Amino acid sequence: MQNIQSSFGIAGNAPVRPNVAEIERQQILAVAEIAFDDPEVIALWYGESDISTPKFICDAAAAALAEGETFYTHKRGMPGLTQALTDYTNRLYGLDLGSDRISLTASGMSGIMLCLQSIVEPGDNAIIVSPLWPNAQSTVRVLGGEPRYVALDAGEDGFSLDMEKIKAAADDRTKIVFVNSPNNPTGWVMPGEQQAELLAFARERGIWIVADEVYARMVYDGEAAPSFLTHARPDDPLFVVNSFSKSWAMTGWRIGWLVHPASMGDLLGNLIEFNYSCVPQFLQRAAHVAIEEGEGVVSDIVDFCRRSRDIVCQRLPAMPRVQGLQPPEASFYAFFRIEGGEDTLTTAQDIVRKAKVGIAPGSAFGPGAEGWYRLCFAQNPERIAEAMNRLEEYLSQTA
Amino acid sequence: MQNIQSSFGIAGNAPVRPNVAEIERQQILAVAEIAFDDPEVIALWYGESDISTPKFICDAAAAALAEGETFYTHKRGMPGLTQALTDYTNRLYGLDLGSDRISLTASGMSGIMLCLQSIVEPGDNAIIVSPLWPNAQSTVRVLGGEPRYVALDAGEDGFSLDMEKIKAAADDRTKIVFVNSPNNPTGWVMPGEQQAELLAFARERGIWIVADEVYARMVYDGEAAPSFLTHARPDDPLFVVNSFSKSWAMTGWRIGWLVHPASMGDLLGNLIEFNYSCVPQFLQRAAHVAIEEGEGVVSDIVDFCRRSRDIVCQRLPAMPRVQGLQPPEASFYAFFRIEGGEDTLTTAQDIVRKAKVGIAPGSAFGPGAEGWYRLCFAQNPERIAEAMNRLEEYLSQTA
Repeated sequence: MQNIQSSFGIAGNAPVRPNVAEIERQQILAVAEIAFDDPEVIALWYGESDISTPKFICDAAAAALAEGETFYTHKRGMPGLTQALTDYTNRLYGLDLGSDRISLTASGMSGIMLCLQSIVEPGDNAIIVSPLWPNAQSTVRVLGGEPRYVALDAGEDGFSLDMEKIKAAADDRTKIVFVNSPNNPTGWVMPGEQQAELLAFARERGIWIVADEVYARMVYDGEAAPSFLTHARPDDPLFVVNSFSKSWAMTGWRIGWLVHPASMGDLLGNLIEFNYSCVPQFLQRAAHVAIEEGEGVVSDIVDFCRRSRDIVCQRLPAMPRVQGLQPPEASFYAFFRIEGGEDTLTTAQDIVRKAKVGIAPGSAFGPGAEGWYRLCFAQNPERIAEAMNRLEEYLSQTA
Repeated sequence: MQNIQSSFGIAGNAPVRPNVAEIERQQILAVAEIAFDDPEVIALWYGESDISTPKFICDAAAAALAEGETFYTHKRGMPGLTQALTDYTNRLYGLDLGSDRISLTASGMSGIMLCLQSIVEPGDNAIIVSPLWPNAQSTVRVLGGEPRYVALDAGEDGFSLDMEKIKAAADDRTKIVFVNSPNNPTGWVMPGEQQAELLAFARERGIWIVADEVYARMVYDGEAAPSFLTHARPDDPLFVVNSFSKSWAMTGWRIGWLVHPASMGDLLGNLIEFNYSCVPQFLQRAAHVAIEEGEGVVSDIVDFCRRSRDIVCQRLPAMPRVQGLQPPEASFYAFFRIEGGEDTLTTAQDIVRKAKVGIAPGSAFGPGAEGWYRLCFAQNPERIAEAMNRLEEYLSQTA
C-alpha cells in the first residue's frame, strides 16, 4: 500500500487509505465556499428546497421527545413505521410487498452506503449511469471499488440511456449497476420497459441494481415516476433507495428507507448496527406521521416547484449563451449548457462572484455533464425570478 | 470471491460479500429476543440507563424544530457546537486543542466506522484489547480487516493490560490498536502511564490508536478517567471516540464526536458526506445545550449508577456460584463469572427464561470473557434490588 501520510500532514508514519485520501474535493463545495457567508447570494447549488418541514411532522418529533422516547430502538425501524412504509409503497405502485422487504436508514445516502457495504469488494466495479450527483461514485471508491460510467445520450428531446452500453461495460467483476431515476442532475426519467430490461440482465448476470428513487414523487405529471419495484421479482438482486428528504421537505432529518430482498434483512440490520445502530425513535415518530399523513405535503411541494420550474424554463432558454435546457419531467433541477462556459467550475465561480447566483458546475456530475450546469429551482418563485434577472444580466454582459 | 448467495437465499446469482455475510448473529440479541415482549423481564443486557433525556436538552431540539432548523447543515458539526466540544475537552483535561481537532459524528459507533473507513484496507489487521463490546471487531471485518485480540489479564485485583502482548501482536499489516477505557464490559481503566507508553509505540510504528472513551465521565472517583489526549502530541496517530449517549442519557439520539489530528478533518468531512451527510441541525442544538449546561446531568447519572452499583456489589458476591466480581471504578457494568455456567449463552438464556432477568453472555465480548457475564446496573435501585432477588433465587436453586 502506498504510504501517503505526507499529503495529510500526519507527522508520524501512520498511513491513511489512498483510495479515501484521493477522493477529490467536492466541486459544488468549491463554488459554494466562495459565498457561504454572503447573504446576497441566491444559492441554487444544493438539492434542497427552501421549505422547512411542515409543523405537524415536527410536532410528532417534539411529542415523542416529551414522552421520553430517547432510548435505543429497532435497528431496521420500528415495526409500525416499516409497516407504514410498506403500505405506502404497495399503494403507490399497486404491489403486495411484505414489511420484511423494508429497512429504515439514516438518509438515502446512508442507504446507499449500506447497500454498497454489503456488495462491493476491492477490485469490484460498479456501473454508474451518469451524469449523477457526486456521492454514489465516491462511496464505491471508499469501499475499494471502481466506478465505471455509462453516460446518458443527450439528444434533441433530452437524455436517454442506451442499454447496450451497460451490457458492454459489464464484466465479471461488475457487482452493481447504479441508476438514479428521476435523475439528479438531468431530470431524465428511466422508462419502465428499460427498467424491466435491466432487471432481466441483472438477474441473468448476478449483478445488483441499486436504484436511487428519491425523486420518485417529484414528477410534474402523474403520481410517481416508474419504479424498478413494478417489474421486480421478490428475490431479484435489487435495492431501491428512498428518502424523506425531497418530497416531505425533510433534508435535515436524515431519514430514508431501502426496499430489498427479504433475505437481506438480517445482514442490513447488522450493518446498521455497525454504522450508527438505529435512527432516533423520536425522528421515526415524525417519519411515521409524514408517510401516513403527508400526501398533501408531497403534492404541495410539487406544485411549489412547478411554479418555479415554469419561470426557469420560460426565461433561461431566452438568455444569451444558454443551450440545451429541456423542461424536466421530474426532479427540481434545470440542466443546461452555457456557450463558452466549458470550464464549468471556473464559470460557476465567476457567476457566484459577479451575479450572486450559485449554481453547480457540471464537473461535479461525471461523464456526460461536461459543459453543463445544474440549477435547483426548489425555491420560492420570487427568489427564482430574481435569480433569473441576475443570470440574464450576467450572461448578456459576458455574451 | 466465494459466492455465498445461497446462504442468503438470493434466487439469482448476485453475490453478497462473504466477510459481511459471515458476521455472526449478535450474542446479546440471542438472549434478548427470548423476552423482547415480556414486560416481567428486568432487562440488564444493553448498555443503557433507564433515565430518559433531561427536559432542558429535549426542549432545545423542540425549539430548533419550531424555528425551522430542518435543512442540511455542516458535515463536521456546526461551528458553535464543535467549539463548545473543544472548550469542554480542554477544560476537562487541561488542554489547549483547536476546534479543528473535533468532528461531530452520528454516534460513537459512527465515529468508529468513520475512523476505520479512513484506515483499514483489506488484509490489514487491528489489535483489539478485549474483552470488548461486540461492534468494533465487526466493523473491522466489514472493512475487510482482521481483528487480532490481546486479552486483558484477570487477576485478584481486577483486570490489567500487559503492554508486551500488544507489541508482540503487531506486525507490518497492523494499522490500529483499539482500546476502550473505561472498558465495556470489564470496567477496567487504562492507567495514564500505559496510555503514554502505547502512544510512543504507535508513533514509532505508524499505527493508529482508536481510543473509545465514551465512558470517560462514568467514574466513581474524580471527574474523568485518564484520556489518551493528555499524553498525545497534536499530530499523533490518534482518534478519540466520544458520545453523548451514556453520560448525558442520550443513547437514542445518536450523537458523538471524534478528536483527531487536524490534518484528518477534510477527509473525515468527506466520509461523513458519504455516510449520512450531517447530524440533524436540531439535534445539534440539543447537543450544544447538553455539553454547555449538562455537567449536573453527568454527575446525577454517576450518583444514580453509584447507588445501584453498591447494591449489586454488595449482593452479587454473596450469592451461590458467583465469582470474580470487582466493584468497577468506572462504567455501569458488573462483570462476573457463574460457577458451572461456562456456556454463557445457554446460561444467560436460561436465566432470562426462569429468573426473568436479562444479562449479557461473555461470549459476546471476545477473548478474555469466556465464562463471564455482564450486567448493566444503570437502572433505578429498586429495580436492581428486585433483579438481585431473582438472581439469588435462581442461583440458589441451581447451586
